[in-house]
Amino acid sequence: MARDERGVTPQSEDFSAWYNELVFRAELVDRGPVRGTMVIRPYGYRIWELLQADLDRRIKETGHVNAYFPLLIPESYLQREAEHVEGFAPELAVVTHAGGKDLEEPLVIRPTSETVVGEMMAKWISSHRDLPMLLNQWANVVRWELRPRMFLRTTEFLWQEGHTAHADSAEAMAETMLALTFYRELAAEAAAIPAIAGEKTASERFAGAERTFTIEAMMRDGRALQAGTSHYLGTNFATAFGIRYTAESGVLEPCYTTSWGMSSRMIGGVIMTHGDDKGLVLPPALAPCQVVIVPIGGGDRAADVQQAARDLAARLSRKDIRVHVDDRPQLSPGFKFNDWELRGVPIRLELGPRELASGTAVMVSRLGDQGADDQGTGGPGRAGGPGRAGGPGRVGGRKTELSLDSAVARISYELSAFQAMLLQRATEFRDARTATVNSWPAFTEAVATGWALALHCGRPSCEEDIKAQTGATARCIPLEGEPDSGTCVRCGLPSAYGTRVLFGRAY
Amino acid sequence: MARDERGVTPQSEDFSAWYNELVFRAELVDRGPVRGTMVIRPYGYRIWELLQADLDRRIKETGHVNAYFPLLIPESYLQREAEHVEGFAPELAVVTHAGGKDLEEPLVIRPTSETVVGEMMAKWISSHRDLPMLLNQWANVVRWELRPRMFLRTTEFLWQEGHTAHADSAEAMAETMLALTFYRELAAEAAAIPAIAGEKTASERFAGAERTFTIEAMMRDGRALQAGTSHYLGTNFATAFGIRYTAESGVLEPCYTTSWGMSSRMIGGVIMTHGDDKGLVLPPALAPCQVVIVPIGGGDRAADVQQAARDLAARLSRKDIRVHVDDRPQLSPGFKFNDWELRGVPIRLELGPRELASGTAVMVSRLGDQGADDQGTGGPGRAGGPGRAGGPGRVGGRKTELSLDSAVARISYELSAFQAMLLQRATEFRDARTATVNSWPAFTEAVATGWALALHCGRPSCEEDIKAQTGATARCIPLEGEPDSGTCVRCGLPSAYGTRVLFGRAY
Repeated sequence: MARDERGVTPQSEDFSAWYNELVFRAELVDRGPVRGTMVIRPYGYRIWELLQADLDRRIKETGHVNAYFPLLIPESYLQREAEHVEGFAPELAVVTHAGGKDLEEPLVIRPTSETVVGEMMAKWISSHRDLPMLLNQWANVVRWELRPRMFLRTTEFLWQEGHTAHADSAEAMAETMLALTFYRELAAEAAAIPAIAGEKTASERFAGAERTFTIEAMMRDGRALQAGTSHYLGTNFATAFGIRYTAESGVLEPCYTTSWGMSSRMIGGVIMTHGDDKGLVLPPALAPCQVVIVPIGGGDRAADVQQAARDLAARLSRKDIRVHVDDRPQLSPGFKFNDWELRGVPIRLELGPRELASGTAVMVSRLGDQGADDQGTGGPGRAGGPGRAGGPGRVGGRKTELSLDSAVARISYELSAFQAMLLQRATEFRDARTATVNSWPAFTEAVATGWALALHCGRPSCEEDIKAQTGATARCIPLEGEPDSGTCVRCGLPSAYGTRVLFGRAY
Repeated sequence: MARDERGVTPQSEDFSAWYNELVFRAELVDRGPVRGTMVIRPYGYRIWELLQADLDRRIKETGHVNAYFPLLIPESYLQREAEHVEGFAPELAVVTHAGGKDLEEPLVIRPTSETVVGEMMAKWISSHRDLPMLLNQWANVVRWELRPRMFLRTTEFLWQEGHTAHADSAEAMAETMLALTFYRELAAEAAAIPAIAGEKTASERFAGAERTFTIEAMMRDGRALQAGTSHYLGTNFATAFGIRYTAESGVLEPCYTTSWGMSSRMIGGVIMTHGDDKGLVLPPALAPCQVVIVPIGGGDRAADVQQAARDLAARLSRKDIRVHVDDRPQLSPGFKFNDWELRGVPIRLELGPRELASGTAVMVSRLGDQGADDQGTGGPGRAGGPGRAGGPGRVGGRKTELSLDSAVARISYELSAFQAMLLQRATEFRDARTATVNSWPAFTEAVATGWALALHCGRPSCEEDIKAQTGATARCIPLEGEPDSGTCVRCGLPSAYGTRVLFGRAY
């Protein structure tokens, strides 16, 4: 199928072009006026709201509370933690002028908020009774981006950042792992992304952290996307900002702190994990529209068809199914089918006079045979029959007859099945493209199309060498990796970590 | 009662000191490191979340969708609308340096987003079929503030800004009024604030608007707080940014646009509408904690009392009542009572061994006789009896016996009654302090303690004169004002507007 019929370069032809075209064509984003910034359009923003609601629930259920810290941070704050400022200095946007005057001290727009949160925690915490302090904020941050890419790397992005303080190291580590669990479960349950949770190697750590943990997701081009990170900060920020508490013994002790973040980048992960040549494929949990109803033709029965479509939508809506009736009069059914496929709506219902007469609708899964449930109760499908609506857009989705009477229960079931199927499909894809390798040729072959699990010596210089040779980086040391040791896949020195390291090319 | 016993200067003694102390003591906010900025602490942020959820629902139910526009705007954008840049230029924060380099064009941090939204709407709208475009965004904005005051005027604040585009003027005006209705209803139904809706006079209009509408709330010191504004922008921004559509006739027409905003300032309005000498009084709809349960003493039955408190909390929580058990062992009941009164929790329940034995709890309204329901079913109150917990903090709230069996239904009822009572009390207060005046002496007397409804000539210079003499400004021309005309209360020239103007000193 050529591009002009479908709107985007096929994924299989040029993954990068497919992505860059699709985010605009599906009206997820637009370019902001300032280089590297993005406008998140309503269709994209709704995905973010659904991600937010899910993660916010997990965060609150575990005793964290939301707060809001200022956007502008005195430049001197960042300098208090040496590694932190070194890591972020090149990406800062600086306000030098405000209220009609030059400022005495320049202000940076937050690239992350450890410093200002640290300053406030030092004020708020005095006794062991004030601990743990479990905070989260939903905010925008700015990191100047030289190679911007919508959702993945933008100068401004939306995220949440958790910041917690604890009386001891073990509790702070448990918190670090709890946050990582939020992300892994959010990715799996909402985004249908089977991410690998693990620890970053020293060279990939957050600037100022003692340990950084990550979830890494495999995109359909085999590359890795870091989709959430959780940092154990030890006493680094507590020392820099004076976050201390009086223990029960009366002794003044430093706090142990953590921070953790998930951003609008996750939307890029959803697009690149599930999308296909026809466009987006959205997991029902995050789909702004889960079901689209397209009323078709009808001649003198058109009004009845429209009414039946609205009635069905009302019934679905009452069960909290996000449904839309596409009654745009100026567009053909074929155009609409293409349009909603491009936008990744999981289920399409077609309703015409014939269906209305028999009390049915035609149900089409966005993924055709992969998506629809074979044990469906709606009778035999109509796949393979000649298309009623015509045009190249309507092929592909397997068609099933849906009884209007039982439509609500059936659609609920199909949405769950669709969600589960996406996770399963992505897991199979990831596993098929992940190789356990013991030689350099096998390593280079694996990272050309996916991931390699390899033994590594743990030296940053060896990681750099691997990156120079293959473009692949150490994504993480998987938490669930089997104990293993031997020699480094690249340099032959004894392996570190006691388990294999996950390598891949990354976004 | 002296200050050290209660924590804040009495409202009646010094309203301004009361407010400035209370926002910190109740842990709503803290000062940010940059002058004029605030940290919104969890207790304050929860109020914002509850406001947000309520308003977001109203916005979405009427067909608007959320989006997100960039924080950084090229300075040149603001200059495209002459009045707009003139109004905002003195308040701008400017980024001149980013990513390690000086920028070619300075960027301003959005003080509001009409310009960048206008630029994008011009891209997105081409046909009459694209209209109306009904957008909203939740965001932070920065306006450099020389006289900062927590929540009311801060350099950075949180808000929502609606931006819509329409094919004709009448529809845009209807949208402007719809948004005003959101704010008036949100204020009344969630914040229990009986705001007056009206139109701003020319001198108080939004920079770039043709007409500005507002809701004005009366604080307990008689001053007015502008708590939400809605602007009819005519074709001003459409012309500046080229927002045009092709009509059905094929002719290219300019759009008519609106914008409207409600901010974290509303929290200041809640504090100053309902608070009293003891601290905050929060309307149940916005109270982070609606009911606090304080387990009391118990000796060898302490564990049973604690368990009963937790069981009751679980029952209330299942009915979506926000409840907290204060089981801090190191603090006395008296301290806790003061603390929760300061924080404005509507209902306190006290539970000790005696109550447990009789299957009851003691219920205390934050507003005592004003708050509790006289037709309560819980038997005679215990008001006037000697305090069990002692200390000056426990006087004030009328005590009622609550049956644990029927506690959930009773508390639900009491919370509704509390909410309704706050609105009624605030309405009575406002009406008692609003005078219809026909002479200058009566005017000056009215605005010394509240509001004046007066005829006015409509000349900006006369408004300035009134402000110079009394500190009062034209708050609005009330939409529901009776037709009236005559001579200006200040200068004697013929009155304008066909109705009276609301004057008051404002925040």
